[in-house]
Amino acid sequence: MCAASRTRGESDKGELRRQQVLEAATECFRREGFHGSSIARISQAAGMSPGHIYHYFANKEAIVEAIAEREEHDIAELLRKLEQDREGGGLVDMLTRQTAEIVERNTDPAYAGLMLELAAEAARNPAVRKILQRSEREIGGQFFRLVQRVGAPAALDDAELQMRLQMIALMFNGLTLRMLNDPDFDLDAAARLINGIIRFLLEEAPPR
Amino acid sequence: MCAASRTRGESDKGELRRQQVLEAATECFRREGFHGSSIARISQAAGMSPGHIYHYFANKEAIVEAIAEREEHDIAELLRKLEQDREGGGLVDMLTRQTAEIVERNTDPAYAGLMLELAAEAARNPAVRKILQRSEREIGGQFFRLVQRVGAPAALDDAELQMRLQMIALMFNGLTLRMLNDPDFDLDAAARLINGIIRFLLEEAPPR
Repeated sequence: MCAASRTRGESDKGELRRQQVLEAATECFRREGFHGSSIARISQAAGMSPGHIYHYFANKEAIVEAIAEREEHDIAELLRKLEQDREGGGLVDMLTRQTAEIVERNTDPAYAGLMLELAAEAARNPAVRKILQRSEREIGGQFFRLVQRVGAPAALDDAELQMRLQMIALMFNGLTLRMLNDPDFDLDAAARLINGIIRFLLEEAPPR
Repeated sequence: MCAASRTRGESDKGELRRQQVLEAATECFRREGFHGSSIARISQAAGMSPGHIYHYFANKEAIVEAIAEREEHDIAELLRKLEQDREGGGLVDMLTRQTAEIVERNTDPAYAGLMLELAAEAARNPAVRKILQRSEREIGGQFFRLVQRVGAPAALDDAELQMRLQMIALMFNGLTLRMLNDPDFDLDAAARLINGIIRFLLEEAPPR
């Protein structure tokens, strides 16, 4: 038992250190760009030796993979919350009740900075692009399956439903760029219009 | 006259060289990031001395300013085309007829790479952020005034109209990110849905 608890303690400590590396790398990517963030620089920011960094992550791409997994995990949490929503109404009501939280999340400057840096890197770096695309497929699949469980609009076939869910994701992507370009952008009004559009996309059933 | 034509010739040549620098810098930003693109690196790519680069641009921010101005100019062209459209219908018809072209433009990999790199840099660099925000205000103002000239929906007050036009811009921003994350994203279906949403935003007049 003693041995087991020591192992557990060590693995908790390992997880904590891994998280520390991830935080430091995230901050470096945001401030200095993916390209400007060498493992040496990240190890400095994390207050660990480069050897320690390599113990947790084989290379910078592995760090991006971990960031993408954290994103998937966060979205999965959000979808779980949505599915457990017992406030009534149908799919659209449940979706639109999450909008304010997603708007806040996607316009947080730290989140926006990191996501845009990874996107810019993905545009020139096939390895990073592959990671983000895999992650996006995973998130898209989760969203699609959730909507099917909650109750997809009967008039939309799978392909059309998938496309419309992608349009919803597209609006939240756009928000991240918009906020940066316009610091006075009215987020409450945006959330209201996004909800109107979600309703339009999922209740205006026949393709148009 | 001889002197004048020589001056003209020289200024044409100057403009050509300035464009060459701009092209080289754009390519550098895209491939190596804003931060990784030193004036030395840009001068190498342009096949000119650093002194030549400084003759046209005081610093890298001045290059970003020129890129932003080119973007404003391109959008102004697009809006001019829209306004000269004589194919009939109202504002929404005229807007939606331009969608396919904007979709193509905003999902062009070279355009996307540059815009995302500048956005990522803007998130950490106040000087670049200021340039992009100024440019965005200018473009937003152009769009708003065009809509007023062509015929704004009567039921929307200025603030609501502005907000809805920003939502349209937001969708086109989102498209740039979406395309990168999902290479199979169906652009024709996206254009169709964007047009449905434009109609929804500008014809569903009362705020909801």
